[in-house]
Amino acid sequence: MKLTKDKKILIVGLGLLGGSYAMALTKKGYTVKALTRSQSSIDYALDAGIIAAGKTGVDADMIAEADLIIFSVYPRVLIEWMEANRNLIKPGTVITDVTGVKGYTVYRIQSLIPEGAEFISAHPMAGRECLGVQNATDEIFKKANYLVVPTEKNTEEAILLCEELGRELGFARISRISPERHDEMIAFLSQLTHAIAVTLMCCNDSPDLVDYTGDSFRDLTRIAKIDDAMWNELFMCNRDELARQMDVFSETFEKMRRALKEGDTTTMRQMMRTSTERRKLFDKPQN
Amino acid sequence: MKLTKDKKILIVGLGLLGGSYAMALTKKGYTVKALTRSQSSIDYALDAGIIAAGKTGVDADMIAEADLIIFSVYPRVLIEWMEANRNLIKPGTVITDVTGVKGYTVYRIQSLIPEGAEFISAHPMAGRECLGVQNATDEIFKKANYLVVPTEKNTEEAILLCEELGRELGFARISRISPERHDEMIAFLSQLTHAIAVTLMCCNDSPDLVDYTGDSFRDLTRIAKIDDAMWNELFMCNRDELARQMDVFSETFEKMRRALKEGDTTTMRQMMRTSTERRKLFDKPQN
Repeated sequence: MKLTKDKKILIVGLGLLGGSYAMALTKKGYTVKALTRSQSSIDYALDAGIIAAGKTGVDADMIAEADLIIFSVYPRVLIEWMEANRNLIKPGTVITDVTGVKGYTVYRIQSLIPEGAEFISAHPMAGRECLGVQNATDEIFKKANYLVVPTEKNTEEAILLCEELGRELGFARISRISPERHDEMIAFLSQLTHAIAVTLMCCNDSPDLVDYTGDSFRDLTRIAKIDDAMWNELFMCNRDELARQMDVFSETFEKMRRALKEGDTTTMRQMMRTSTERRKLFDKPQN
Repeated sequence: MKLTKDKKILIVGLGLLGGSYAMALTKKGYTVKALTRSQSSIDYALDAGIIAAGKTGVDADMIAEADLIIFSVYPRVLIEWMEANRNLIKPGTVITDVTGVKGYTVYRIQSLIPEGAEFISAHPMAGRECLGVQNATDEIFKKANYLVVPTEKNTEEAILLCEELGRELGFARISRISPERHDEMIAFLSQLTHAIAVTLMCCNDSPDLVDYTGDSFRDLTRIAKIDDAMWNELFMCNRDELARQMDVFSETFEKMRRALKEGDTTTMRQMMRTSTERRKLFDKPQN
């Protein structure tokens, strides 16, 4: 299957990300329908003109007519949905998702998908500090990475379709990565950084902190306002890898603390120089 | 002494911060001279019109004629300078600084200052990710905090003068704080966050990290490019307090790691909610 404008797209879960997908794809000329929990999200999306139709709960007709189904729900909700409703998916349908953990979801979902349909996983690395379809915007894709996460079960055709979806959504960069490497990367780059930001906010409750705060503390805690239901689930679904990354961080942090206590300025300055050198790579303009 | 436009200001150390002070004060109409190590910094500052005169090394006449001397040098350089040249300071001179650690410097400097002169310490919480007078700009003061750090030895007159200096430089907010509370705050808000950013960069040397990096990792490591000579000195001059803050962080981080490993989602979500609530305070518009 190729991603042509006549293809019918169904989005399951019309929150911030699902709504932003709907907006981007409707703008591009696709017919986008949606299934979600709340009628008010559907009403908003219809009013905003970002979906052609929508229903609450599960709708057999919408599922059967869809060429491409995009799940924008929590990892466990995705698995539960598939366990309950897999029989409604017709052969030839391509299914993708947006979940931020892969080892936990991809193999389970692929084992549930009916014969003739295909699940190709993806992780759009885009978000905002607010939730809900009311905050949806395709602006969040413009400088972001889109990761396609295939397994051995996937066809090249479905992988290419998923990459094309990333391009149509407007992502700046599209890459392929295995589920295992994805979870390792995400544990380090995203989950560990959120764990650190939350920890920093939990360390100190002085009311006058705000008066003395400079840019560095604001930078390190910008992501400290998080949706605890979602992040708890992301952490728990990737817990072994996240715990491993937290251990690496703790050991490296302890190395610096020991150098400080012992007055080992050689080690401390070497760590600072390594940091400075490596961080420069992240400033390079992206292709 | 009051800060009137006829007062003669001498800046010792013409780097990024000293140069930015020179620019702001010259624009306001003060006569600003400078002593610094390199002739090229003086040449640049004269060309740029941000100082009226400058010399390398120590100049007895410039020191004797100054009403206000501002030291913009490393903490240990400040102490060494004062030990070597204190006899050149005339009675009535007010002296201030910009150093980021206070317990280590303030009491020593105050004990070295000759009779009739006064040292009132300050910490302008402003900076850039680059060094040198060539990068000086008074823009860095506009949204920043200026902390005046008096001891029992200071007169109210000198404290008010120092606060007026912060206003003349264009700082958004001026506060008074004790040396001990300052060092505790700085250890937590600035030094700990730099130690975390450096640690993050030292954890992982995968060359393809950049391809998968989202905003959160960039946020947490924006400050990871640091001048190792300066930060090593700041860390070492505040090492007990920084080590204490690193311990508090490690204990809180370990609490989250334990909750993750044990599947204690109640504790994990409670930490996330605490984080979210506290972080909101930092978004409020500042007065």
